Amino acid sequence: MENRNTAPVGVFDSGVGGLTVVREIARQLPDENIIYFGDTARVPYGSKSQNTIIRFSEQIIRFLKTKQVKAIVIACNTASALALDAVRDEFDIPVMGVVIPGARAAVEATRNRKIGVVGTDATVQSGMYTKVIHEMAPDVTVIEKACPLFVPLVEEGFKEHVVTREVIKYYLESMRDTDIDAMILGCTHYPLLRSKIRDYLGEKIQIVNPAYETAMDLKELLREQNMENGGATLEHSRYAFYVSDAAEKFRMFANTVMPFDVPTTNVVNIEEY
Amino acid sequence: MENRNTAPVGVFDSGVGGLTVVREIARQLPDENIIYFGDTARVPYGSKSQNTIIRFSEQIIRFLKTKQVKAIVIACNTASALALDAVRDEFDIPVMGVVIPGARAAVEATRNRKIGVVGTDATVQSGMYTKVIHEMAPDVTVIEKACPLFVPLVEEGFKEHVVTREVIKYYLESMRDTDIDAMILGCTHYPLLRSKIRDYLGEKIQIVNPAYETAMDLKELLREQNMENGGATLEHSRYAFYVSDAAEKFRMFANTVMPFDVPTTNVVNIEEY
Repeated sequence: MENRNTAPVGVFDSGVGGLTVVREIARQLPDENIIYFGDTARVPYGSKSQNTIIRFSEQIIRFLKTKQVKAIVIACNTASALALDAVRDEFDIPVMGVVIPGARAAVEATRNRKIGVVGTDATVQSGMYTKVIHEMAPDVTVIEKACPLFVPLVEEGFKEHVVTREVIKYYLESMRDTDIDAMILGCTHYPLLRSKIRDYLGEKIQIVNPAYETAMDLKELLREQNMENGGATLEHSRYAFYVSDAAEKFRMFANTVMPFDVPTTNVVNIEEY
Repeated sequence: MENRNTAPVGVFDSGVGGLTVVREIARQLPDENIIYFGDTARVPYGSKSQNTIIRFSEQIIRFLKTKQVKAIVIACNTASALALDAVRDEFDIPVMGVVIPGARAAVEATRNRKIGVVGTDATVQSGMYTKVIHEMAPDVTVIEKACPLFVPLVEEGFKEHVVTREVIKYYLESMRDTDIDAMILGCTHYPLLRSKIRDYLGEKIQIVNPAYETAMDLKELLREQNMENGGATLEHSRYAFYVSDAAEKFRMFANTVMPFDVPTTNVVNIEEY
């Protein structure tokens, strides 16, 4: 089983957001090799239909399988909410998403049993967070709110701009006026706005980033299935990055997010998979 | 040549923006049938690379050709700026874009020979408007400015929101402080923000919407090539709408833009073309 253990973990997202999950996996599982795919040619996913999200996810998993990944993390809440069940049935390797880990973290964090969830239109319309939270804790009240401009703001590099503060206020004013005491960042792009969101919401609401629990769950999965890597690296680098478009823009962005230098990023014509 | 004359005109854009061009064609050429394609699965185009924009445009033109279109209007500034030359060489039917008509309208409008252009990142980085304007009028000063959040704002239905006013101010403050007297809306989504942009810029700057000149150029092209339609309609409706995703969302949006009722919208798997 040596090959299986040294094989990389595949991680994907619609764009740069999933890097917040890679960052956490790299921190908690420093011996694992990672192949990341960002679907920058078709970002954003949050405004698209379930059929399309499933088709895009299938193409990406087929691509990642050509890289002999041993497990896949869907580092995108929209694809986790809309495509996880479909692709789990279809592919013969373990696939996990970020919604279940995120929901569990929020249920553990709340004291007053009131949780807020922010995400894309598609994630919120799916009601998946509310469903998963209620399976874990039927007594919890869940308030969901779609923030469709957050992904474009992050993808366009606006996290420090005045406009971003205005957009955060616009979306989160109603959330701040509730008495929730925990709020899930239900989109992997949103942790990149975390400090601005915290500035606006204040200290009474604990902000939950599903990336941390996702990395923990991945660790558990690899241990259970005896697939942990002893430390052998992938070719010359532990991490490899692929995108469907605009590799240089992605690489520059990734270098602002990741705690290590992001090497070359390769472009894949994902529609061929 | 009867078949060729009654054949529809194909019009495409990355999403809903091209509807502003359809609206103008419908007004100026009421006898022409139109097949519209909006690439809603892959919107926005403005942050993508030239190779990707060319590949997407080729797929869409191949799809439109299956509908026996007699001519194609690229109702997207990004694709006009980055893909028009490539696809013109490749396909055997007339293809026109919106950049040349828009540039001509602005050159005619300016009195002080100073023109502003707003568009997507990709359009502005291409420098295509400056190049085309200088071919027509070398003495004109052109100031270009990318406004990457305008497309997400329009696609997400934010045109009436407070946030939009803030974003307009953020992008156009420097433009307002220049002494340009004409500004091209160099993205077909932007006319949907026109009244807000005008409110911000005031009356001294004439806002140029390339859609009007594009429809005039199309009329001229059809006349020259003896391809005008005498009035026979396309099946049961003069206009047919196709998208690559989220047909119902598109249809509802289209109904707010078009002066007539938009019938069913069909989803096409554009990656197969």
